[in-house]
Amino acid sequence: MAEPLGVGLVGCGTVGTGVARLLLEQPDRLARRAGRPLDLCRVAVRHPEKPREVALPPGVVTADPAAVIADPRVDVVVELIGGTTVARRVVLDALAAGKHVVTANKALLAEAGGEVFEAARAAGRTVCFEAAVAGGVPIIRALGESLAANQVTAIQGILNGTSNFILTSMAERGMSYPAALAEAQRLGYAEADPTLDVDGSDAAHKLAVLAQIAFGVSARPEQIERRGIDTLDAQDIRFAGELGYTIKLLAEAWTGESTTGGREVALHVAPVLLRRTDLLAQVRGAFNAISVHGDVVGETLYQGPGAGMMPTASSVVADLIDLAVGRAQATFAAARLWSREGKGFVVEPVERVRSRFYLRLTVADRPGVLADITRILADEGISISSVVQHEAGEGATEPVPLVILTHTAETGRFRAALRKMATLSAVSAPPVSYAMGD
Amino acid sequence: MAEPLGVGLVGCGTVGTGVARLLLEQPDRLARRAGRPLDLCRVAVRHPEKPREVALPPGVVTADPAAVIADPRVDVVVELIGGTTVARRVVLDALAAGKHVVTANKALLAEAGGEVFEAARAAGRTVCFEAAVAGGVPIIRALGESLAANQVTAIQGILNGTSNFILTSMAERGMSYPAALAEAQRLGYAEADPTLDVDGSDAAHKLAVLAQIAFGVSARPEQIERRGIDTLDAQDIRFAGELGYTIKLLAEAWTGESTTGGREVALHVAPVLLRRTDLLAQVRGAFNAISVHGDVVGETLYQGPGAGMMPTASSVVADLIDLAVGRAQATFAAARLWSREGKGFVVEPVERVRSRFYLRLTVADRPGVLADITRILADEGISISSVVQHEAGEGATEPVPLVILTHTAETGRFRAALRKMATLSAVSAPPVSYAMGD
Repeated sequence: MAEPLGVGLVGCGTVGTGVARLLLEQPDRLARRAGRPLDLCRVAVRHPEKPREVALPPGVVTADPAAVIADPRVDVVVELIGGTTVARRVVLDALAAGKHVVTANKALLAEAGGEVFEAARAAGRTVCFEAAVAGGVPIIRALGESLAANQVTAIQGILNGTSNFILTSMAERGMSYPAALAEAQRLGYAEADPTLDVDGSDAAHKLAVLAQIAFGVSARPEQIERRGIDTLDAQDIRFAGELGYTIKLLAEAWTGESTTGGREVALHVAPVLLRRTDLLAQVRGAFNAISVHGDVVGETLYQGPGAGMMPTASSVVADLIDLAVGRAQATFAAARLWSREGKGFVVEPVERVRSRFYLRLTVADRPGVLADITRILADEGISISSVVQHEAGEGATEPVPLVILTHTAETGRFRAALRKMATLSAVSAPPVSYAMGD
Repeated sequence: MAEPLGVGLVGCGTVGTGVARLLLEQPDRLARRAGRPLDLCRVAVRHPEKPREVALPPGVVTADPAAVIADPRVDVVVELIGGTTVARRVVLDALAAGKHVVTANKALLAEAGGEVFEAARAAGRTVCFEAAVAGGVPIIRALGESLAANQVTAIQGILNGTSNFILTSMAERGMSYPAALAEAQRLGYAEADPTLDVDGSDAAHKLAVLAQIAFGVSARPEQIERRGIDTLDAQDIRFAGELGYTIKLLAEAWTGESTTGGREVALHVAPVLLRRTDLLAQVRGAFNAISVHGDVVGETLYQGPGAGMMPTASSVVADLIDLAVGRAQATFAAARLWSREGKGFVVEPVERVRSRFYLRLTVADRPGVLADITRILADEGISISSVVQHEAGEGATEPVPLVILTHTAETGRFRAALRKMATLSAVSAPPVSYAMGD
């Protein structure tokens, strides 16, 4: 059997522990699949003295990432510390030292992908990142290899398991957002500070990575419109349910022709109403799923655990096997990700994207209100698909919810209509609206 | 840019036409993805004079597969004629002539995989076959590359789009099997002779291919128990629906410990009752989907178009790109498929597989019948989860259907119970039973 592939881990939290366990517990299996042993040589941790779930061999542990990078036995540095400061330094230093890099760090790729990939090309080394998006779901290989004959034209992804877990609890058990979040935290599906998960930032980072592969665009964070589930009202989930829809936090990309004849891609993260029969609507709990539309194959869908110790370790170790086999190097060279050439797409705001919309207004129950609202929509060329207004008690004076589903309309024109509605005296709270996935 | 990869097609039916179109219409895209041009050099067709949907360049068409193989510009022979006689000869001759092979031929792989792969290894050439299973769904790469850190422990797949289309019509529109088949034929989803699709043979061939990748076993056709949808009674779909289940034709593999301590895998193709909330139960029409359980990642699922001109072409051309990039060669060498070494699994009959069961009996409506039947089940250690017997009219003398769902039981013991029930005088038709997926 050929020379071992030396593996150095930087970071040994949840995912790192899973990777170490897999390397130590399945050496024969992995050597067979990789054509050579995968040797765990060094592991850098912040607190070497802390007891761990995995028994690391003596002499392997260090507190110094530089010791992992400098170890001549280490061929691949696996960066699992997260964040964009120390992690960026570790990755760049590893590449400069002639090591391949495997990372699960979507934030680093979204924010410094260009720098990291240029450094890798300059060093003649490879960066792998299957675990950075959707944990155990092999969406990176699907986009970059399996669908290579296609131009991707649309992506819809449930990329944040925490949000999907909370939404599932809200939809199936009628919980409020705060109650569902508290439960998710108690069960370990949400962190003490859940902000990046529930406000759409985590999904936006992952979407930026997918957009790089599919469209060759390096989307800056501010180019990805995002809206999380943290402002979602349980009554919108109920109304959606009555109408046959489920609300999911989706990361979406659509392509189109720009007005100047070029090709553009719009990216957003937002709660979206999906028809209950849609496959993505069926994805429950902490799972992730991605639907990809390619111009040759049509729609394909990938689903699985989006996070967790062993699912994410499965993807990290798949990357190590690919490096051992030589497949990763071929892919890296051919894909030219985060390079200057691009694929001819530019990122555009979502204003021109066409979609159906869900709109909930809180209105005074008096004559003429519906006429004013439907007139505003008509003026923007938006036609109505259905209206739900439950009967208020005779003589009731409280404002009532009015729910409207539109036919397909341009996002920009719908937003213009929203702004006009907000000025109506009969509309007593800011209009609430979501795009629909059909 | 590097030397072109010369492509020769043998067979230009539906899929071949799609491949030719893609190569001719998207040369720039494919060259970018492959790092070099993919040149369509020769195409062998049975009737060169026949008009075609795709305009092949002059001088490309020949009636002789040997001319494709012998052409020095051809680096890869794409075999798309199907069947196991001429196709086998073409593939072996191509390998002997030093060409790589891409094929969509599951029957050839299932029946002569060992011979083909040994020939490829002897010639130092690569065989790719993403399109052989589930058309545009990249299940071959998922099993062989993305999940390489896992031992697969179970597979459940909807692998025959024709059957799934017919089942969807039966379930959603209450059609009988003959009516649904006739419609599928009219719409082009079923062939004039649909036997191999509806009797489970096509799905069994595909399952044999997946079992080779996942378990290293070369399953002979007779080792895969198969039962198609052609004997399915509409009333079983109705009863399943009442109980919250959908019937799908599944190709399934389960692993277990054998009684001698080795590892075994059981394979079957059969209609199976899936809970309506199961993701596979939601797969409608001609789509394919595969759920794979890996011991590291847990469950991942892959879905998409299982057949058709462009979806299948998408997979064939992905293989061509992998060959151009060099990825396919690395995978082929590492995977050692259809080799003698195996992964330690042996194929076992499904008798020891544990499952829940749906059972429909046609019984005389008289005292003691249910007692006899439940006694037989109890004697085999099988407990009952639910019973449905609709009220017959008072004094009715017609036999009535009695539906029983069991808790988990060993297939062999359930079958023993079935044999005993068939001997009861009150049971007036052969018992009908299906496994349940939960």
